Amino acid sequence: MRFTKKRSKKAGLPPGTLVHIGDKESGDARITIIDYDEAHFEEKIVNTIEECMVFRDKPTVTWIDVDRIGRVEIVERLGECYGLHPLVLEDILSTDQRPKMEDYGDYTYIVSKMLYYNDKNHQIEVEQISLILGRNFVISFQEGKEGDVFDVIRERLRKAKGRIRRMGADFLNYALLDAIVDHYFIILERLGERVEALEEDLVKHPTAKTLHEIHNLKREMIFLRKAVWPLREVIGGLQRGESPLIQETTRVYLRDVYDHIIQVMDTIETLRDMVSGMLDIYLSSVSNRLNAVMKVLTIIATVFMPLTFIAGIYGMNFKYMPELEWSWGYPVILIGMGFIAVSMLLYFKKRRWL
Amino acid sequence: MRFTKKRSKKAGLPPGTLVHIGDKESGDARITIIDYDEAHFEEKIVNTIEECMVFRDKPTVTWIDVDRIGRVEIVERLGECYGLHPLVLEDILSTDQRPKMEDYGDYTYIVSKMLYYNDKNHQIEVEQISLILGRNFVISFQEGKEGDVFDVIRERLRKAKGRIRRMGADFLNYALLDAIVDHYFIILERLGERVEALEEDLVKHPTAKTLHEIHNLKREMIFLRKAVWPLREVIGGLQRGESPLIQETTRVYLRDVYDHIIQVMDTIETLRDMVSGMLDIYLSSVSNRLNAVMKVLTIIATVFMPLTFIAGIYGMNFKYMPELEWSWGYPVILIGMGFIAVSMLLYFKKRRWL
Amino acid sequence: MRFTKKRSKKAGLPPGTLVHIGDKESGDARITIIDYDEAHFEEKIVNTIEECMVFRDKPTVTWIDVDRIGRVEIVERLGECYGLHPLVLEDILSTDQRPKMEDYGDYTYIVSKMLYYNDKNHQIEVEQISLILGRNFVISFQEGKEGDVFDVIRERLRKAKGRIRRMGADFLNYALLDAIVDHYFIILERLGERVEALEEDLVKHPTAKTLHEIHNLKREMIFLRKAVWPLREVIGGLQRGESPLIQETTRVYLRDVYDHIIQVMDTIETLRDMVSGMLDIYLSSVSNRLNAVMKVLTIIATVFMPLTFIAGIYGMNFKYMPELEWSWGYPVILIGMGFIAVSMLLYFKKRRWL
Amino acid sequence: MRFTKKRSKKAGLPPGTLVHIGDKESGDARITIIDYDEAHFEEKIVNTIEECMVFRDKPTVTWIDVDRIGRVEIVERLGECYGLHPLVLEDILSTDQRPKMEDYGDYTYIVSKMLYYNDKNHQIEVEQISLILGRNFVISFQEGKEGDVFDVIRERLRKAKGRIRRMGADFLNYALLDAIVDHYFIILERLGERVEALEEDLVKHPTAKTLHEIHNLKREMIFLRKAVWPLREVIGGLQRGESPLIQETTRVYLRDVYDHIIQVMDTIETLRDMVSGMLDIYLSSVSNRLNAVMKVLTIIATVFMPLTFIAGIYGMNFKYMPELEWSWGYPVILIGMGFIAVSMLLYFKKRRWL
Amino acid sequence: MRFTKKRSKKAGLPPGTLVHIGDKESGDARITIIDYDEAHFEEKIVNTIEECMVFRDKPTVTWIDVDRIGRVEIVERLGECYGLHPLVLEDILSTDQRPKMEDYGDYTYIVSKMLYYNDKNHQIEVEQISLILGRNFVISFQEGKEGDVFDVIRERLRKAKGRIRRMGADFLNYALLDAIVDHYFIILERLGERVEALEEDLVKHPTAKTLHEIHNLKREMIFLRKAVWPLREVIGGLQRGESPLIQETTRVYLRDVYDHIIQVMDTIETLRDMVSGMLDIYLSSVSNRLNAVMKVLTIIATVFMPLTFIAGIYGMNFKYMPELEWSWGYPVILIGMGFIAVSMLLYFKKRRWL
Repeated sequence: MRFTKKRSKKAGLPPGTLVHIGDKESGDARITIIDYDEAHFEEKIVNTIEECMVFRDKPTVTWIDVDRIGRVEIVERLGECYGLHPLVLEDILSTDQRPKMEDYGDYTYIVSKMLYYNDKNHQIEVEQISLILGRNFVISFQEGKEGDVFDVIRERLRKAKGRIRRMGADFLNYALLDAIVDHYFIILERLGERVEALEEDLVKHPTAKTLHEIHNLKREMIFLRKAVWPLREVIGGLQRGESPLIQETTRVYLRDVYDHIIQVMDTIETLRDMVSGMLDIYLSSVSNRLNAVMKVLTIIATVFMPLTFIAGIYGMNFKYMPELEWSWGYPVILIGMGFIAVSMLLYFKKRRWL
Repeated sequence: MRFTKKRSKKAGLPPGTLVHIGDKESGDARITIIDYDEAHFEEKIVNTIEECMVFRDKPTVTWIDVDRIGRVEIVERLGECYGLHPLVLEDILSTDQRPKMEDYGDYTYIVSKMLYYNDKNHQIEVEQISLILGRNFVISFQEGKEGDVFDVIRERLRKAKGRIRRMGADFLNYALLDAIVDHYFIILERLGERVEALEEDLVKHPTAKTLHEIHNLKREMIFLRKAVWPLREVIGGLQRGESPLIQETTRVYLRDVYDHIIQVMDTIETLRDMVSGMLDIYLSSVSNRLNAVMKVLTIIATVFMPLTFIAGIYGMNFKYMPELEWSWGYPVILIGMGFIAVSMLLYFKKRRWL
Repeated sequence: MRFTKKRSKKAGLPPGTLVHIGDKESGDARITIIDYDEAHFEEKIVNTIEECMVFRDKPTVTWIDVDRIGRVEIVERLGECYGLHPLVLEDILSTDQRPKMEDYGDYTYIVSKMLYYNDKNHQIEVEQISLILGRNFVISFQEGKEGDVFDVIRERLRKAKGRIRRMGADFLNYALLDAIVDHYFIILERLGERVEALEEDLVKHPTAKTLHEIHNLKREMIFLRKAVWPLREVIGGLQRGESPLIQETTRVYLRDVYDHIIQVMDTIETLRDMVSGMLDIYLSSVSNRLNAVMKVLTIIATVFMPLTFIAGIYGMNFKYMPELEWSWGYPVILIGMGFIAVSMLLYFKKRRWL
Repeated sequence: MRFTKKRSKKAGLPPGTLVHIGDKESGDARITIIDYDEAHFEEKIVNTIEECMVFRDKPTVTWIDVDRIGRVEIVERLGECYGLHPLVLEDILSTDQRPKMEDYGDYTYIVSKMLYYNDKNHQIEVEQISLILGRNFVISFQEGKEGDVFDVIRERLRKAKGRIRRMGADFLNYALLDAIVDHYFIILERLGERVEALEEDLVKHPTAKTLHEIHNLKREMIFLRKAVWPLREVIGGLQRGESPLIQETTRVYLRDVYDHIIQVMDTIETLRDMVSGMLDIYLSSVSNRLNAVMKVLTIIATVFMPLTFIAGIYGMNFKYMPELEWSWGYPVILIGMGFIAVSMLLYFKKRRWL
Repeated sequence: MRFTKKRSKKAGLPPGTLVHIGDKESGDARITIIDYDEAHFEEKIVNTIEECMVFRDKPTVTWIDVDRIGRVEIVERLGECYGLHPLVLEDILSTDQRPKMEDYGDYTYIVSKMLYYNDKNHQIEVEQISLILGRNFVISFQEGKEGDVFDVIRERLRKAKGRIRRMGADFLNYALLDAIVDHYFIILERLGERVEALEEDLVKHPTAKTLHEIHNLKREMIFLRKAVWPLREVIGGLQRGESPLIQETTRVYLRDVYDHIIQVMDTIETLRDMVSGMLDIYLSSVSNRLNAVMKVLTIIATVFMPLTFIAGIYGMNFKYMPELEWSWGYPVILIGMGFIAVSMLLYFKKRRWL
């Protein structure tokens, strides 16, 4: 289930016990190290944590990206090497964390959520991204889902685009968060398109399928909101300088990310309001159509029931029914029936049922 | 779509990259410069940014109005000339910003939304207005939609009406914001009229069209709220003196604008409440009419079904049916049927169905 | 319309331009001056503002009451004479203000709303009351609707009832606000009676008229809330001493008014909750009655359709239908039909439909 | 009406005018005086206020309990004697006050609401209890409804149970409030039982009566909430030490009362949520039953209409209808009809309508 | 009832009177004492409180766990021995407390709720856990429900797993709270599974049972929320250091528990939103099915009523009906009827009813 992960297997274990909670991932972790300053750039893919050690005490900025965190040992070794608190390691491995920021003095631990739009089942998929920001390093942990929004950052570092190579680790940290938040807009556009398509459907020919699409959209919105809302506080905290590792110059940029988050929340709320409104409209349309159906039934019944009754009267077998003997009886009755039918229809016309 | 603009094309670009997000506008930007103090007034339309430079260091107040911001270079040049932060330039070009105020020390950056009521499709249209308030200048950026609410300000400056020529750049900045907010009342009046017309419709003859009108009004209200609500904070911040560029004497005027914004929000909320109430009434009316239809059907069926059954009885071809032979059989049966019909109708009368 | 006044005619005018926004009132303003201290009392109706001037610098308390503010000049002259800010004068003339308090040092400007219950159309009518509280004067501006709640205050001043003559201008200001708020309780009683009457209606025989009454009550409640809610903040501010003109001894009395406002709000909320609940009940009753109607229809149809079918069978003209020849055929069939009818009714009895 | 009392008769009177607002009570006030310290205890019922005077300046704790406050003079005399503010006296007599606390330096004025569950009409009845807490006295005013929750306190004082005789007036004040709040739990239990009974009804056989019971419960909940909610603030304020007359040792006890109030509010909210949920369920059940009714109707009509039609065909009197002459015509038609009926029923079976 | 316990029997008793409020439990209390420091560990089950005394003044950490608090004397004796306030003892015995924290200087009193998922009736069951945290001891009181989440802590203490034996009483207190909160996730998983199952039901074949399951889930959610929500404040308070007994090193761990609580609340809200959405969907489906039923009825009636009427016409017994004499009359009429039926069906096809 997307809303409650299997946390139960951890219940009762002592704090700091490292257990991976999340979808099973095959394959090993992929560790990429990028080390840079304004003049110098080095990138390599390593197999063992020991290779990271050499960068630890260099003055250059080091970015260690761990993709696929399924194997507990790697996280454990990195933790030992960089002196991370056991609770941090535990949280990195528990992929059902809420976005949050925790300041541990020497380093700041940030949990955020990368979101992908799955085109097959039209559901939003989530990947937990943990960031450790130190004085001269950033360690990022990904769950290892397909696609990687950090590629653009790597490219920018390689080509020294923008100011990123001239700035410190806190700017790299900002750039990673910015890449994550920027990606949310893509999700919003997809949802926006679905809302628009749905609105057209609703006006033209609402069906039971429309109803389920409304329901699904609502659920995706709940899901999206749950991932984005707490990130607002996280980035707000970073921007207000709750972490001593963020420099003044970077805060302006974080304010920009904060604005984006607010904009994302705003749009989610707007879409939610619209989808809620659609449900009301759908329900009203269903009632309206029921009304239309009932009117047809009532008109038919009201016109034909009296007529059938009259025909029934003259179908009776009484011996003495004078009308039956008249030579004009039949046409007179037919005309009388026509008159009844027409006046009924006029009555309905007057009541605006036709 | 009105609710989510094409932000995706910016995802992954470094911060400060200038890309225009918004509707494509044909034609070049139109730059108007007005330079004034109490004694002196100069107005000209320029083609190149270089012509603005001369006013930069003069003690007089300079207002540079850039209409149609489609071309990136003009914004870039102005930014260089007045030393604006790259993120500010980026935000000016991204026309899906939320109203906000950012203080950069030397200048204050304000985003607000001009709203127009489109009489053709009865939708509210939005134009982003960015204001840069400096010590002795105001730069305003418009998207270049038809109509311009700043004309009244220009007229006032030309004719030295009111105190505007005697005050500084912060008062000009106030006057521009005031013109924007004053225009909201026109939108509200239009919506108010629609709500009133709708209410009359609802009482007289609600149709499926009424339902869609309710839905549309609700959507416009969501849209309006999204544009106005954050402006409240912006003007509240200016009035409380969060920007050092606002002088004490101007704050009283900003408090006035703040009151107007609150009044706008208040009216939006009231209209929202009324529209919500209408939906309830609409749904109830639909149910009521269904009830009315069903009553007609039930009355007709209840009166004629027993009668038709009796006629059916005496239409049977049994050899030995003594009633058929009686000479009074036919009139007796007719009278009996009449009696049944009348008592049914009396029963419905008693139950208040007639 | 009651919810949005014609503000548009002011859009674009410079701040402080005096334009009267509100219902047209015929006739001139009526200016009443009351000047008093513990020993002395003087009351006169004047025609020109100049006559007010003499009281300005006297140590006694002066109350200038301006009824019907349609003529702009009177407000303008008073403003000049007492040194009021142009924005205050503008607000006095704009009768769609939200209740608010603004402190201008020498004087405090208070906007409040007098409410009347119109017995003809059962709507609440609103009159804007502006109060200017100075060190030794109070100026009150009324729109000039019929009836005047300030008469009781005048009477009290004339007869030196209570402590009012012994206290300063701030106490007079309190007394005027108290008179306004006390009048709200009368409105609430009227609404309360309507809610009660409606509740009885709802239980006994809900009709479409009940629905519209619910809707109207809801709208009046929205209207009432809009006028009362912001007054809470105003009086709260006065009581907390946000205006330096309010003396300590008067604050206890303002706390009393504040309590009344809270009580008014409380009652409005309660009535709102009750009216909302009624709508739910109404909708449920409609559904219930639909159910009842449908049951009658279904019972009738279920009893008579099979019987009519059987009669139809024996009305067929086949040559060889042995039953028709039997001498007991007719009574046997009649008994069979009776049996079917009775068992159907028993079935419905069992399902609790009867 | 229970929600708006006749306040209108006070509109326009000067502040501090003593008028009794509330239900008329026959009979005189009953004044009970209890004077105690750890060693000494005295209790007497007095007729005139003058008899209270002797206790005023004694160091012992004096509790004056005034039951039935209908006569204005008694309140007035007590006010004079203990130096109470006219507004306090006015509030004591206005029995539609909201629970509140006001500190007047020498004494603290507390308004609270005693609630009784009326077993006859299943409504909650309210009695206003005003408490005046002074340094060495407590004066309590009751409206004089039947039953008295203060009896337990009197008993405790007489028998010197618990620590009450060893503590000061503030502890007595606490004890009185505690007795009031404790009584709320009894109301909650009654409502809880009704909610439970209703829930069972709802599952077994919901009727229109269920609907009205839901409505009534909702109204009682609104009523209860209105009386309890503001008391939270009152006791919170006392506990935080907003009154200088409350000693440190008593605060721990007030915190306990505060917890109880929170618990009461909590339970009210829970019950409200449950009752709201029930309304939804009720509406759904009504819809479900309508569906069931309609299915029966549709099945009957769908089975018998075609059959009746066929019988009608062979009831026609055409001269040349070959089928009528066949000797097997009648049984063949009967079998055909049976076949149609069975296939219709199978169709409904397949669609899960049976 | 689960929502209101029998508090009434305590109404009117003096504060600090010890009465057990809660379900009757048979059997005696079971008292387990664990005394430990890093080197030493002692565990024993005692029968009398006197045996606890010896541990009181030792420097080691003592954990006294009292299971089944039905007998008042044990709580009373423990209270005397450890100097607990009478109100604390009262609260321990009242098992309908809201989670709360109270600091009494020497010790901190914490109320929390252990939740169990009852697999038989699918209801959540609650057990009140009171914790007394002192400088070197923790006393825990349980109601004595089956199962004990503290077993894992005991095991960890015995085996000296993790850091628990190296830390003080505040860490033990944290560990107990952590065990309680961890268990909430198990409840959430169960509810999550039910929500998922329900969602599938809703799409495939919603029945009246689905409706009751939705209702039950909603009620469980209300119940869960009531138990968890206030615990948030409690643990937040502990983590912010509102109790002087919590050491700095333990706070990081409490922050972790706090995060878990937030996550639990988050998930509850998400599930609530989903269940609410389901109710809307259910109601819509019911309306949709009603529509479908009515369409079938209307189609049948509309096709057969005119046909039956025509058959009725030619079943009349008029002497002079020329059509009856024609040899082609019968087949022509049959063909005419077929034509009417087909055109009706085509009409319904066009209106998308088929």
